[in-house]
Amino acid sequence: MASPNRIPEIRKDTVNNRWVIFSPARSRRPSDFKSKSNPVNPTSQPECPFCIGQEHDCAPEIFRVPAAGPDWRIRVVQNLYPALSRDLESSGELAGRPGGGSVALSGFGFHDVVIESPVHPVHLPDLDPVEIGDVFMAYKKRIEQLQCYDSIQYVQVFKNHGASAGASMSHSHSQMIALPVVPPTVSTRLDSMKEYFGQTGKCSLCEIRFDALLIDESIHFISISPFAATFPFEIWIIPRYHSSHFHELDGVKAIDLGRLLKLTLRKMNAQLNSPPFNFMIQGSPLQVSPAQLPYTHWFLQIVPQLSVVGGFEMGTGCYINPVFPEDAAKLLREVSIS
Amino acid sequence: MASPNRIPEIRKDTVNNRWVIFSPARSRRPSDFKSKSNPVNPTSQPECPFCIGQEHDCAPEIFRVPAAGPDWRIRVVQNLYPALSRDLESSGELAGRPGGGSVALSGFGFHDVVIESPVHPVHLPDLDPVEIGDVFMAYKKRIEQLQCYDSIQYVQVFKNHGASAGASMSHSHSQMIALPVVPPTVSTRLDSMKEYFGQTGKCSLCEIRFDALLIDESIHFISISPFAATFPFEIWIIPRYHSSHFHELDGVKAIDLGRLLKLTLRKMNAQLNSPPFNFMIQGSPLQVSPAQLPYTHWFLQIVPQLSVVGGFEMGTGCYINPVFPEDAAKLLREVSIS
Ligand SMILES: Nc1ncnc2c1ncn2[C@@H]1O[C@H](COP(=O)(O)OP(=O)(O)O[C@H]2O[C@H](CO)[C@@H](O)[C@H](O)[C@H]2O)[C@@H](O)[C@H]1O
Ligand SMILES: Nc1ncnc2c1ncn2[C@@H]1O[C@H](COP(=O)(O)OP(=O)(O)O[C@H]2O[C@H](CO)[C@@H](O)[C@H](O)[C@H]2O)[C@@H](O)[C@H]1O
Repeated sequence: MASPNRIPEIRKDTVNNRWVIFSPARSRRPSDFKSKSNPVNPTSQPECPFCIGQEHDCAPEIFRVPAAGPDWRIRVVQNLYPALSRDLESSGELAGRPGGGSVALSGFGFHDVVIESPVHPVHLPDLDPVEIGDVFMAYKKRIEQLQCYDSIQYVQVFKNHGASAGASMSHSHSQMIALPVVPPTVSTRLDSMKEYFGQTGKCSLCEIRFDALLIDESIHFISISPFAATFPFEIWIIPRYHSSHFHELDGVKAIDLGRLLKLTLRKMNAQLNSPPFNFMIQGSPLQVSPAQLPYTHWFLQIVPQLSVVGGFEMGTGCYINPVFPEDAAKLLREVSIS
Repeated sequence: MASPNRIPEIRKDTVNNRWVIFSPARSRRPSDFKSKSNPVNPTSQPECPFCIGQEHDCAPEIFRVPAAGPDWRIRVVQNLYPALSRDLESSGELAGRPGGGSVALSGFGFHDVVIESPVHPVHLPDLDPVEIGDVFMAYKKRIEQLQCYDSIQYVQVFKNHGASAGASMSHSHSQMIALPVVPPTVSTRLDSMKEYFGQTGKCSLCEIRFDALLIDESIHFISISPFAATFPFEIWIIPRYHSSHFHELDGVKAIDLGRLLKLTLRKMNAQLNSPPFNFMIQGSPLQVSPAQLPYTHWFLQIVPQLSVVGGFEMGTGCYINPVFPEDAAKLLREVSIS
């Protein structure tokens, strides 16, 4: 797959401002990248609190889709073991901490679960584009609710699928964590995109056009292998229209995104043997200033879990990726799905 | 372990400039944190290229300790599948890359393996402090050699132990990657320590003194649970003397560090059931300016692998740690080892 004559390259991810090492010598044959087992349980689980009929075992519901009645298709519920607490007053600084510049805030925030289907064995790519669009519209609705809290600065929407992608529950779901701080990757990304905008007057994600990296396109979105992908077979789905916030999505675009995400996940499953994966919506802080609007642009990052991170990556924040993005894009572009 | 009445806290790691969420609701009982199996093969492996007698299966040697003769105790060798190539001219910018601000350098650099013992079943904490000190002195010697290359900016020393910490080889070893760029975590750390120095006139790591976080002390080093530990039971071993670079270590301090590392790893093994782990030397770029010397201070970061990273951490760079560092420090301080 990766041409053996290629020399290693160190590429800069100019969106996230980090270096990635592309190392053909470390590439193994493509079949070695296929994950060995799919740890997701395909059958129904009588004890699963996310299954329809088991709502009593679940933490309190925030809303369901459709809005009333027992036959829900999506539920947004509180996380029973939340990382942050919605019951704290606000996010004040805590006193009595040791010196040396230490800072601690009380852990105010929201941690919700989006149950994407009422039945256990159905996963996201099994849904049709309209149903996946409904999941996106549920994210949007919940973000709009969370936006009303002054101290919430950022909402991270993410999905863990499969044990080695971190999932502890196998029923199809995603999560949303609303934070009282702007996370480090978001500030770094914004600084980077601002710098590019300063130099060129353009949004760096509106500018991405490089045929060798393109996987697919729909009316409103493109899917690509990013030029300096951190992980092998990492994929970004980027709106073709300039937009700072995911929750600017409307119903028509949500279905279009649902169609492209479904295609992308099915291609990934076909090419890489249904690997565990994560996806993350990479957006902007809730309060962006008008000056930030021209260069902030959200996207959906999809990362199949094909390798283990080691001490080098933990120490440096630089990743070693054995697969050149051009090669990954070609494979994903050409894979035929039935 | 974690007091159930504690509220979640968001702490700032002021050394690395990142937020960590401490979430008691997500803590499980301490026994749940014990790793289930130790994937390291304890017996000798006839095919292992790192074993004494198998030198012919190994990539070329750089040096051995002692310097000559067949009875070596440590070997520093080239990595057979290097991430970077020592054979490229230098690290120039590559032309012909797509627009949109993309940058690519040729992948010049060094990737070495330090074989820590001639025999397969012996691991680092089985060595005596003098022998561990010799491993550190081998790192030092190799860093001093790599320093002669003008384009090398940073050397990352790291160890992967156990499959879920990324190791592909079970014979006790560590690795060194010499990079033509300063990695992102290093620049961020330097900026952060500079800021603290600007505000206080002091080095933030010289200032760390908080009894509740202390695990052990030796003549020249302390081991602590950092106030905003990214990972549960993460440990930092910090020189008590101010020093920018690991390779300023002398033979006496190397043995003292060997003793403290041995104690720390044995405690971690006893308390956490011999988990897979990584360690990383967190240092400074090779060329630090005299102005940077007062606030750059190296340390050894040890991370047992007890949890899987999920989409939230990948998306935000914020980690969720269910174990408060004070609790981890207390457990590690008090564990008795035979
Ligand atoms: N009855 C119930 N009602 C409501 N909610 C319930 C519930 N039972 C369980 N839950 C919640 O459901 C969620 C399921 O989430 P995932 O399977 O995506 O991964 P989890 O959050 O456990 O951890 C992964 O993702 C996080 C964030 O990335 C990482 O910190 C972590 O290491 C990784 O394993 C859990 O957060 C759990 O608290
Ligand atoms: N005969 C031989 N002679 C010389 N060297 C030989 C050799 N046979 C194998 N090697 C090298 O020995 C090294 C052993 O290293 P580790 O077991 O620590 O993890 P590895 O580097 O494979 O990957 C882990 O660490 C890296 C860096 O953190 C991560 O990128 C990766 O995902 C993770 O699995 C390998 O790098 C391998 O190339």
